[in-house]
Amino acid sequence: MSPIELLTTHPHLSGEAPNPTAEGLRGNIENYIGMARVPVGLAGPMQLNGDHARGDFSVPLATTEGALVASFSRGMKAITESGGATVKVIDEGVQRAPYFELADLTTAANFIAWVAGQTEAFRTITGENSRYAQLKSVVPTLEGNAVTLRFTYTTGDAAGQNMVTICTDRICRYIAAQFSGDIKVWYLEVNASGDKKANYANFQRVRGKRVCAELILPRAVVKAVLKTTPETIDRFGRAACYGALQTGTIGVHAHLANGLAALFIACGQDAACVAEAAVGTVRMEATPEGNLYASVTLPNLIVGTVGGGTGLPTQRECLELMDCFGAGKANKLAEITAGVCLAGELSILAALAAGHFSAAHERLGRG
Amino acid sequence: MSPIELLTTHPHLSGEAPNPTAEGLRGNIENYIGMARVPVGLAGPMQLNGDHARGDFSVPLATTEGALVASFSRGMKAITESGGATVKVIDEGVQRAPYFELADLTTAANFIAWVAGQTEAFRTITGENSRYAQLKSVVPTLEGNAVTLRFTYTTGDAAGQNMVTICTDRICRYIAAQFSGDIKVWYLEVNASGDKKANYANFQRVRGKRVCAELILPRAVVKAVLKTTPETIDRFGRAACYGALQTGTIGVHAHLANGLAALFIACGQDAACVAEAAVGTVRMEATPEGNLYASVTLPNLIVGTVGGGTGLPTQRECLELMDCFGAGKANKLAEITAGVCLAGELSILAALAAGHFSAAHERLGRG
Amino acid sequence: MSPIELLTTHPHLSGEAPNPTAEGLRGNIENYIGMARVPVGLAGPMQLNGDHARGDFSVPLATTEGALVASFSRGMKAITESGGATVKVIDEGVQRAPYFELADLTTAANFIAWVAGQTEAFRTITGENSRYAQLKSVVPTLEGNAVTLRFTYTTGDAAGQNMVTICTDRICRYIAAQFSGDIKVWYLEVNASGDKKANYANFQRVRGKRVCAELILPRAVVKAVLKTTPETIDRFGRAACYGALQTGTIGVHAHLANGLAALFIACGQDAACVAEAAVGTVRMEATPEGNLYASVTLPNLIVGTVGGGTGLPTQRECLELMDCFGAGKANKLAEITAGVCLAGELSILAALAAGHFSAAHERLGRG
Amino acid sequence: MSPIELLTTHPHLSGEAPNPTAEGLRGNIENYIGMARVPVGLAGPMQLNGDHARGDFSVPLATTEGALVASFSRGMKAITESGGATVKVIDEGVQRAPYFELADLTTAANFIAWVAGQTEAFRTITGENSRYAQLKSVVPTLEGNAVTLRFTYTTGDAAGQNMVTICTDRICRYIAAQFSGDIKVWYLEVNASGDKKANYANFQRVRGKRVCAELILPRAVVKAVLKTTPETIDRFGRAACYGALQTGTIGVHAHLANGLAALFIACGQDAACVAEAAVGTVRMEATPEGNLYASVTLPNLIVGTVGGGTGLPTQRECLELMDCFGAGKANKLAEITAGVCLAGELSILAALAAGHFSAAHERLGRG
Repeated sequence: MSPIELLTTHPHLSGEAPNPTAEGLRGNIENYIGMARVPVGLAGPMQLNGDHARGDFSVPLATTEGALVASFSRGMKAITESGGATVKVIDEGVQRAPYFELADLTTAANFIAWVAGQTEAFRTITGENSRYAQLKSVVPTLEGNAVTLRFTYTTGDAAGQNMVTICTDRICRYIAAQFSGDIKVWYLEVNASGDKKANYANFQRVRGKRVCAELILPRAVVKAVLKTTPETIDRFGRAACYGALQTGTIGVHAHLANGLAALFIACGQDAACVAEAAVGTVRMEATPEGNLYASVTLPNLIVGTVGGGTGLPTQRECLELMDCFGAGKANKLAEITAGVCLAGELSILAALAAGHFSAAHERLGRG
Repeated sequence: MSPIELLTTHPHLSGEAPNPTAEGLRGNIENYIGMARVPVGLAGPMQLNGDHARGDFSVPLATTEGALVASFSRGMKAITESGGATVKVIDEGVQRAPYFELADLTTAANFIAWVAGQTEAFRTITGENSRYAQLKSVVPTLEGNAVTLRFTYTTGDAAGQNMVTICTDRICRYIAAQFSGDIKVWYLEVNASGDKKANYANFQRVRGKRVCAELILPRAVVKAVLKTTPETIDRFGRAACYGALQTGTIGVHAHLANGLAALFIACGQDAACVAEAAVGTVRMEATPEGNLYASVTLPNLIVGTVGGGTGLPTQRECLELMDCFGAGKANKLAEITAGVCLAGELSILAALAAGHFSAAHERLGRG
Repeated sequence: MSPIELLTTHPHLSGEAPNPTAEGLRGNIENYIGMARVPVGLAGPMQLNGDHARGDFSVPLATTEGALVASFSRGMKAITESGGATVKVIDEGVQRAPYFELADLTTAANFIAWVAGQTEAFRTITGENSRYAQLKSVVPTLEGNAVTLRFTYTTGDAAGQNMVTICTDRICRYIAAQFSGDIKVWYLEVNASGDKKANYANFQRVRGKRVCAELILPRAVVKAVLKTTPETIDRFGRAACYGALQTGTIGVHAHLANGLAALFIACGQDAACVAEAAVGTVRMEATPEGNLYASVTLPNLIVGTVGGGTGLPTQRECLELMDCFGAGKANKLAEITAGVCLAGELSILAALAAGHFSAAHERLGRG
Repeated sequence: MSPIELLTTHPHLSGEAPNPTAEGLRGNIENYIGMARVPVGLAGPMQLNGDHARGDFSVPLATTEGALVASFSRGMKAITESGGATVKVIDEGVQRAPYFELADLTTAANFIAWVAGQTEAFRTITGENSRYAQLKSVVPTLEGNAVTLRFTYTTGDAAGQNMVTICTDRICRYIAAQFSGDIKVWYLEVNASGDKKANYANFQRVRGKRVCAELILPRAVVKAVLKTTPETIDRFGRAACYGALQTGTIGVHAHLANGLAALFIACGQDAACVAEAAVGTVRMEATPEGNLYASVTLPNLIVGTVGGGTGLPTQRECLELMDCFGAGKANKLAEITAGVCLAGELSILAALAAGHFSAAHERLGRG
């Protein structure tokens, strides 16, 4: 389907339909004054061989940065001409991390022991407060007389921050009522869940989805589409690791945020989650056969296909473009997102490695 | 001016005006298929006593997260009723960090010495390639036979990533041609500038603007507007520091990304820069007099009021709402943004400290 | 027992006994040329109320830094006059983190699933290769086609790095032989276990022992011994958190390494483990009653009371001074070490908070 | 000179001379009870081609870890057979980082401006309080109403922590007296100088010496001495970078602490400084010609050849073994230390890459 055809069938993106009313936006905005309009370009198509995302996908990206859609399309072309990328959700979980300050260290140690025996009670409370959330684990960290509990839930096809907030709040109230020791104070969150911010704790584990995209690009594709060689990218990749290490970056990547922000805005995801989602590990290496191994691992990808902004008019149209609207689609969206990020990294690493980066921005950007 | 009045004078936000054409969006998007529409709520008003932002500001925030605008408005009310926040740009600079691999360690040390003598040449090249960019400093980091040069520029009222890319590219080509030693390979960037990613190097210095917002809230305002006490927030603030430290977060804050993403989308900023901008340092303390000291320091705030997406229809309207469109307004926008972030942190810290956080989301969010 | 008495009964510390022979040092050193002699001062006594360390302890500290022993003794006096510190081992485990590169992402995911079913086989191999090591957990991290397995063991009363190396090596060989998929390469370690280096992964969990020391110091003790007030230290503690956050420090503390290095050298511990052990979380707060809450949490304390250098002459004498030599004493030594670190932090925080820090060094140090 | 000959001329290492008296140790220890004795093995010889360290060096390493000296000697043999390593001091500086809390943000900004004009006064104070310290730079960091000043000094041939403490204390008192604005509180240090702890701020710059060691090892040497190939080490090096990145390690290295701790103990350095010195960047790559490029960069190497423990009997003997005792030798010691670390990394990376790591420990260690 060409972009022209798309326009005829997407009245909200196209601007034919009027803005939603304040009433129609209840639950998404307060003190509503209108709709910001952000240009959407269609990148791709990109072939994905995922567990959930299988086939060719054209991806709507909302951005105002010239050259971005063209650059991602170039990466997608390289992926597709290489036979498509494997994409896979490795793990999932959304956190809340309440804090309990106990009377003293001994009470704190007793608290941890007591909490370990409450898992079933916590699961029951979770079930009573959400249809979708399921409690996966509770991991305590003791520091002096304080204990932070890291609750991890699965949240169905929703991004899930609100449901884990509510369930954890109820569990905390249960704890406060039931624990026999002296709780001096407790908080639902003390910056430890990684909500709306990157941290090493989540980078090493998961927040939202931990998702991976990978493929081997034949040498000919690297040369024809990316205008360089596997060895050139390999050598750049090594230097780029040291760039990340020298500067104290969480993980190593070039511009994950570009694809994430553009996809999140187009598709009704929480754009603030770019803060936590834009960490990850990119690896590109020449293979002994002269081809290019490339992978992107995104440990903290918060996405959902129900709730949040997914049901708003243009957002829904964008999700529907990829058949990602509604229940049962969150893993598919996560896999597509990983593919998008892989495409973006392939294109920019090739450009930086080959010395073409500045030229691309001069040609397509606004400066 | 009420939201109702605003609607009558903002045809793009209101949806009365048609979408821009692909031609009108040249330089901002490729393969254009339409405009994503994101709800904008008007937060505030908020009184600021800045060097550039002085007076009362109502701030357009584009988000799909229920309760966000209400929460920020609450923080703004607390600021305003306290007499307004001081906001101030402390430092500025945008980086590119090219990498040079030399023949060996000795050549690398010689390279650094040679580069130190080229500052005037680099400034001249900068002037030839940009009307706005000015080279501020070049700081080398040697690692074995490799040297990364951290170029920092001021970029006028533009966010400036493209101009620093172009200028640094030209300088690198000059270096490659002029340095008499053996440069084995060079790259314009190796993940070391912090473009579209957070790192400790920029957190400690500046990227874009380093901007700060601060005020003392009278105890009565904390109680009336934020529904808690300075001591309650103070105690929470201490726990929240340890939450950040325990999890390996860059800086300490609760949800800077929420305000940044919403303001960036509304105002034509690069939403991908949430990745780097959403680090910072929040500090709230009870004063000896029983009031609340509060500050937010944002070291990596990339904003501009010319170029990028600032001239697009709804984006321009949103900037104009705050008199922040065009030349001479970037520092003002930076100061307002710091105020927005302070408002957001005040509201959420109060809610978390007082145990009201979950309830607010249940009342206003979509879940 | 006074230091004078100690000298009469410790021939090696006192210098009366000759150096060990090369033969007697087999397994500890190669190409032996003699013994470095490091001054040992006796700090304390310090009262501890631990699960393993109960009573008054005088602690041998080997250092060449003037003022160090005096400073720690001051902290120990404050602890003792406050009724002693609670000390407690919260968790334990020593890691090896081998790396497996598989054929591709799909094989890597299959590898993780296969490994999850091999726990019993891994435990059996562990038992066959060590009398002391017990496998506690195996946690995989997938990145593209690579999987790092974090093996955590308990190691009895030994520091245990060698036994976990040997056991993990055997397990890896088993994996390489038994896994049906294509393992392209594997390594016993890729800088991921935290052996001899600090990292965020271990800081958040445990390496060696996670041990905590805590007490409340009465206001009168703070004033009489530490020459300042709880509120003065509390205020300093807040600023010191921001110092740690601003500079990207792992945890927050003033000088854990001082106590750790001095105790490690005296007691035959691996002094190189200061690199990983010298991270932690110090918290000091004024209580509502006007006293001082103080705690130190050391997540990565590698200590042992058998093996390594513990059986060497002066090292054994130092361990015996605290009744910490041999089997069944590792947790006791860990608890004492936490107490030592708490004493050191109390003394230095008081000095820094009250403005006495420079004077103490001028009086006792060599400059 | 063989180890046997060394024994005849080093009465303290050999154990022939008696322990020092308490009086003789004044300024190094309090409450002295004797001397800990740590086995010293002689590693090397190692050829270095430095600016200060030129020739063949046998290096005394004090350790109780079996296999350590043998492993370092293997690395030194590989270096020497390759024609020696280039070693070079790139930068130097020791920090104190006092903290000033001002009345408010505006005063804090004024404070920074005022401080910028006081450099000459600060230099004068420095000169009045130390014969060796010279003030190199003062860099402010503003956060809300607080300013941390990062003072960097050169300290001659001393490690220098005490002299920078005293000078900075005097400067702070001058500031407190002279600045016309309201300073609410100031501290000489708030965990921001990196004294006795690793942080990203110093990792990216310097603390003590920033020193580098580098060489290219011919393929034949890699095969004969390190028992593997450049390509095998290269591949391992890539995986090890990701191991460091995944776990949030500052820099990338295998076991810098081992060489540093052993050298520090033998040579009268402050062993607690292992905490800050044991960060760095190791890079090993196969060259196009089939040889091995190897480098180690140590940004935070605190060493001195006067003061501290350098004048104690065995410590002086160890320094004299390398002609590193006394004035004018600190850079030489720094260069040798970098060479030692390079040797250690070469040996362990070869062992890990080739799968020999566990076997070496089983043969030589105590288990």
